Amino acid sequence: MYDVEKVRGDFPILARQVNGRPLVYLDNGASAQKPQVVIDAVTNAYTNEYANVHRGLHTLSNIATEKYEGTRGIIARFLNAPRADDIVFASGSTEAINLVAYGWAMPRMVAGDEIILSIAEHHANIVPWHFLRERQGVAIKWVETDAAGAIDPQAVIDAIGPRTKLIAITQCSNVLGTIVDVKAIAAGAHAKGVPVLVDGSQGAVHMPVDVQDLGVDFYAITGHKLYGPSGSGAIYIHPDRQAEMRPFLGGGDMIDTVTRDTVTYAAPPMRFEAGTPGIVQTIGLGVALEYLMGLGMANVVAHEADLAEYAAERLGALDFIRLQGNAPGKAAIFSLTMDGAHPHDVSTVLDKRGIAVRAGTHCAQPLLNSYGLTATCRASFALYNTRAEVDALVDALHLCRDLFA
Amino acid sequence: MYDVEKVRGDFPILARQVNGRPLVYLDNGASAQKPQVVIDAVTNAYTNEYANVHRGLHTLSNIATEKYEGTRGIIARFLNAPRADDIVFASGSTEAINLVAYGWAMPRMVAGDEIILSIAEHHANIVPWHFLRERQGVAIKWVETDAAGAIDPQAVIDAIGPRTKLIAITQCSNVLGTIVDVKAIAAGAHAKGVPVLVDGSQGAVHMPVDVQDLGVDFYAITGHKLYGPSGSGAIYIHPDRQAEMRPFLGGGDMIDTVTRDTVTYAAPPMRFEAGTPGIVQTIGLGVALEYLMGLGMANVVAHEADLAEYAAERLGALDFIRLQGNAPGKAAIFSLTMDGAHPHDVSTVLDKRGIAVRAGTHCAQPLLNSYGLTATCRASFALYNTRAEVDALVDALHLCRDLFA
Repeated sequence: MYDVEKVRGDFPILARQVNGRPLVYLDNGASAQKPQVVIDAVTNAYTNEYANVHRGLHTLSNIATEKYEGTRGIIARFLNAPRADDIVFASGSTEAINLVAYGWAMPRMVAGDEIILSIAEHHANIVPWHFLRERQGVAIKWVETDAAGAIDPQAVIDAIGPRTKLIAITQCSNVLGTIVDVKAIAAGAHAKGVPVLVDGSQGAVHMPVDVQDLGVDFYAITGHKLYGPSGSGAIYIHPDRQAEMRPFLGGGDMIDTVTRDTVTYAAPPMRFEAGTPGIVQTIGLGVALEYLMGLGMANVVAHEADLAEYAAERLGALDFIRLQGNAPGKAAIFSLTMDGAHPHDVSTVLDKRGIAVRAGTHCAQPLLNSYGLTATCRASFALYNTRAEVDALVDALHLCRDLFA
Repeated sequence: MYDVEKVRGDFPILARQVNGRPLVYLDNGASAQKPQVVIDAVTNAYTNEYANVHRGLHTLSNIATEKYEGTRGIIARFLNAPRADDIVFASGSTEAINLVAYGWAMPRMVAGDEIILSIAEHHANIVPWHFLRERQGVAIKWVETDAAGAIDPQAVIDAIGPRTKLIAITQCSNVLGTIVDVKAIAAGAHAKGVPVLVDGSQGAVHMPVDVQDLGVDFYAITGHKLYGPSGSGAIYIHPDRQAEMRPFLGGGDMIDTVTRDTVTYAAPPMRFEAGTPGIVQTIGLGVALEYLMGLGMANVVAHEADLAEYAAERLGALDFIRLQGNAPGKAAIFSLTMDGAHPHDVSTVLDKRGIAVRAGTHCAQPLLNSYGLTATCRASFALYNTRAEVDALVDALHLCRDLFA
């Protein structure tokens, strides 16, 4: 039995007030709060067990290395990757996707080659591909959402042409909450010989992920949305794709030998991890994922599905707001606009009631443009949110309506 | 008056034991320990004030943004950069140097163009330039150290040819402790129209840095060596060079507009900072630099100079070890080898006495090759080390000699 009040007790920040009201944190799509076990792991690492990793032979370095490298196995388990070495650490999904753009796509793609994106991508999964367009003439093909905000996997597969070299797509829209059937897309794409990169920044937070079952080539996660520290993250890379990649960041730890005239590289995954890494935040990410798996992703999904259903019902009943996206089975992420009130003003009023939401383009300008919008208010829920917080949001939206309408 | 015992009290890990002995932490060249104020800042950020930065309009986001962006000004003050906007955040100096390699050098350099490096560079300031050699035929010209391990600024300037496009050089060797006169190099290079990148990973730790006085174009620092959190860092970039750079990592926050067919970029420094950044570690870095400036870099320099002098005297008196590098005014970084004992074995024995040193190539294989070595033991001192710790090291080296010789 999932006890949300007990879970809330694990997150110290949820006990605080904002503007004299209990914090109602609904900005989880931007970043999630951290459980005490993660904060304690970070504090302990710096207080008692800190040193640089690898290369060291002394006790502290060995402790730090063991914990740091342990996270690789934890992430592999979290994503059901076959081997820990299929996991490459990154500072987040942005760096992870850039690793694929620079390390895999850039040396392989020439003018006229195509990358397929959905219109619902976050800028992290758009701008690296725009670089390839600007710099080497790669074409971006866009797949639309339907009226509900859903993405038809067959439409993605049908967009594949003879020059398509990659499909890069989110598993969960950070604006609409739409879940994308990346397993069906990967099956169709692979039948045509096209690899698939999945931006799992939101997906891995809101559903169990099994990269072997999904059959994807790349799956990027970002730690700070997974209840882990800022500056942590990773990407699963299928060994066949790893073998095709050239190094991205150059520096220590990713080489085998360096001379004046030559350089040879370490085997993957180290080949793709240069310099002193985010040691402590990666240790913290491991603890965060253990925490998540301890709760059970199935339990998290069930709790968030209840929140999504309840929020859809309550928000849907408000005739003065418009909701963007109502695809079946969507995650508990709600973008809304209110006639006569700018989203920034709405979010400011909500903040006065202690409610944290985000207003803006949510780093998804092409999607917002497709809706004819320049901004929305987004309430994005997490495993520690409650029905009572949905009620608080609805009450505060009534207040906004009274103020602005 | 610099009270090292008081300073030691600020670093909780220094109170711990290793293998039943008080920790003697002499692996600061790899990474430094953290004062309680930094640990507290990290803990507080996650416990009470966490949210994603920028774009947010709610209270927690505003608090986090203010603290995060505040670090930009602190770094500018620490490096005496004219403007906070001359500082670009990075996950460390490795990412920072790669930013320059990909963002500035890669689009500007063609086959036959030259980059000048010293033989004493860390791999972080070698491998990104090897990429340009491998990928676009750029030539690397190496400047040697002299017998003492010093680097003659005039030798660097004299190496400049008509095809030289960049000098990339450390301010302080992480193996030898050699201090490089990057001010003289920058003056000579600029007279010939060549920009200078300084790897300040060690330099900024061991001396006051004034990028305006030095007159360099790029100055990279890494937070974890500056008593700050892992995964933090930055680079000073002269505005003229910023204007010449194209973006490196693509994603959120670094754009102005994104459409299906176009992308425009934010103004620097944001143009060079993609995605959710290392929020909390950057806040922690700001606190670490305030701590350093509170101690006073001049006091730190004086304390470390005393340690360097004492260690040089005591280690120099041991006839069974050889020290690499004795350039005048060198920092308190000592690489040594012992006849008949592998550096890895020496470091393992030292660890049994609670003494943490590093053994290996220290990510500086070309330098070690120039000495005919494949590994050294490195004892690298910090602001919290003491003469008594030098004595402990010397005693333990005697023990090694007895064991191995």
